[in-house]
Amino acid sequence: MLKTPYLLFLGDAPDQLAAKVAQGVKDWRPEFALGQLRLEGCRADLRLPEMSIADAAAAGARTMIVGAANRGGVISRNWIETLVAASRAGMDIASGLHNHLADIPELVAAAKQSGTNLFDVRVPRNDYPIADGKPRTGKRCLAVGTDCSIGKMYTALAMEKVMRARAMKASFRATGQTGILITGSGVPLDAVVADFMAGAVEWLTPDNDEDHWDLIEGQGSLFHPSFSGVTMALIHGGRPDALVLCHEPTRTHMRGLPHYTLPSLEELRELSLATARIVNPDVRVIGISVNTAALSPEEARDYLSQTEERMGLPAVDPFRDGAERLVDSLPA
Amino acid sequence: MLKTPYLLFLGDAPDQLAAKVAQGVKDWRPEFALGQLRLEGCRADLRLPEMSIADAAAAGARTMIVGAANRGGVISRNWIETLVAASRAGMDIASGLHNHLADIPELVAAAKQSGTNLFDVRVPRNDYPIADGKPRTGKRCLAVGTDCSIGKMYTALAMEKVMRARAMKASFRATGQTGILITGSGVPLDAVVADFMAGAVEWLTPDNDEDHWDLIEGQGSLFHPSFSGVTMALIHGGRPDALVLCHEPTRTHMRGLPHYTLPSLEELRELSLATARIVNPDVRVIGISVNTAALSPEEARDYLSQTEERMGLPAVDPFRDGAERLVDSLPA
Repeated sequence: MLKTPYLLFLGDAPDQLAAKVAQGVKDWRPEFALGQLRLEGCRADLRLPEMSIADAAAAGARTMIVGAANRGGVISRNWIETLVAASRAGMDIASGLHNHLADIPELVAAAKQSGTNLFDVRVPRNDYPIADGKPRTGKRCLAVGTDCSIGKMYTALAMEKVMRARAMKASFRATGQTGILITGSGVPLDAVVADFMAGAVEWLTPDNDEDHWDLIEGQGSLFHPSFSGVTMALIHGGRPDALVLCHEPTRTHMRGLPHYTLPSLEELRELSLATARIVNPDVRVIGISVNTAALSPEEARDYLSQTEERMGLPAVDPFRDGAERLVDSLPA
Repeated sequence: MLKTPYLLFLGDAPDQLAAKVAQGVKDWRPEFALGQLRLEGCRADLRLPEMSIADAAAAGARTMIVGAANRGGVISRNWIETLVAASRAGMDIASGLHNHLADIPELVAAAKQSGTNLFDVRVPRNDYPIADGKPRTGKRCLAVGTDCSIGKMYTALAMEKVMRARAMKASFRATGQTGILITGSGVPLDAVVADFMAGAVEWLTPDNDEDHWDLIEGQGSLFHPSFSGVTMALIHGGRPDALVLCHEPTRTHMRGLPHYTLPSLEELRELSLATARIVNPDVRVIGISVNTAALSPEEARDYLSQTEERMGLPAVDPFRDGAERLVDSLPA
């Protein structure tokens, strides 16, 4: 669990997209986003107060989030001076990049001296249990997709935001490094050892109040052969009461697999229910979340209304329209 | 890939079942089983020549297989002297137990000095690729089960034996530590990191002759919530042409999960085909393998003939009857 509030480090991010982790923190946990620190050449801007390490420490920042990736997705050499300074100033550092904070000797030394922590959020703990498949108290909703990278995290975060605004009990449960950095905790499921995947998801979504909802971040797709095992572990470990189907209507093939087409929403519904019912016979599909970014507003409206009619379920783009109607569909 | 032939080390195994790995080597790879080495108190016996380390080295043993487990499944302190002696005598050592050969300092020192290898077969290599889901040349058969530990490995090994006797091209592909020790190579799938599971299975079953069959060892079950993700990765990474359904008719609940009943063979067929067709639309279920050990010969005969009629597929107990009829059902 990361300590809040955060200083968001953007490094020398070459464009806005490279700072998407920091942008995610600002969008979904604005109350934690104290300020931004940018190096020379940085072309991303979150429109947050610019802060030096000293400014941020004085303002009470507890963790510096490495919120950007350079080309290659690794920690740059020219970032290390700043990371060391933050550590010396008493901040924890958190990163989801491929190379690890724990492998940078000068940073490890600084953290040891100042008594601060280094969090490589791609590295799982090693003591998840084996799943026991038992029902837990409280409710769980899982986003599943016709493909990877199709809006599952966004959908769950958007639902959590609506539910909190309505004073409902809701917790986004991160299962990937971006989600973990945005919300400060979670399980990096794709890095967990096979035998413990489902158990890690059970651990992440424990017994809770009967009217509490976990909004579980989906990973992969049952239809994506590279990662379908991870999705299956999420479905069985998460034991969802509600499923949201996620789709991107203009994608011509599965991500990274030009020889695989996407399944239909009907196929996704059928296979998701068939697998989820093994652990929870009462599971229901409650709605459809469509990423319509590639469509015009009019095309999007048409696609959503046609999909809604065809599937007999609310179909929304949570980015354009919000997630209210998905939340409305959750069973009591 | 382990060097053959083997000396099978039984330690002080408390009973025959504790030596099941060594028994498996003797049953399925008798040509590799040079002899057995037993310590005082050993109650297992493979009826192989008793050999000292010196005997085995003189007879040409290249690897000593730790073929037994004590209570707890770890390497006993009082085994280490023998392991060190085998290493000094020039043998590699292979073990699938929970604690690792590589963590025993005196054994590591001995192996270094003699230039031999220590194989902890539970420890995966770290460089499996991410699966690409592409078709490969050659054919693949996968055993799937209504539960874990239901005869999937036995079924695949029995089919391989029949096929080799018929001079067909066939390779058992081990995916668990017992199978790896029995056949000398494979992938310990339950220890592979989630993102690489399906890729590890693709790596294990590469392009081959068009008339070559991989007999892939199954793991877990799509219906077992603790391990279903591993099974899904096997189905998508293995891209089977043929599936064999495995079942044990007297089991009252899923292994380790008293709150889960087993699915029917029909349910297993339906979900296995639904998931396997994502990667190979031509996949077929070719037969049913039933572990009838808990039934009388007459009950077994009745159960098999009823199942055969009900499912419209050959149903055999490969232990009682051999796997000929399963092999007969493989598509050309």
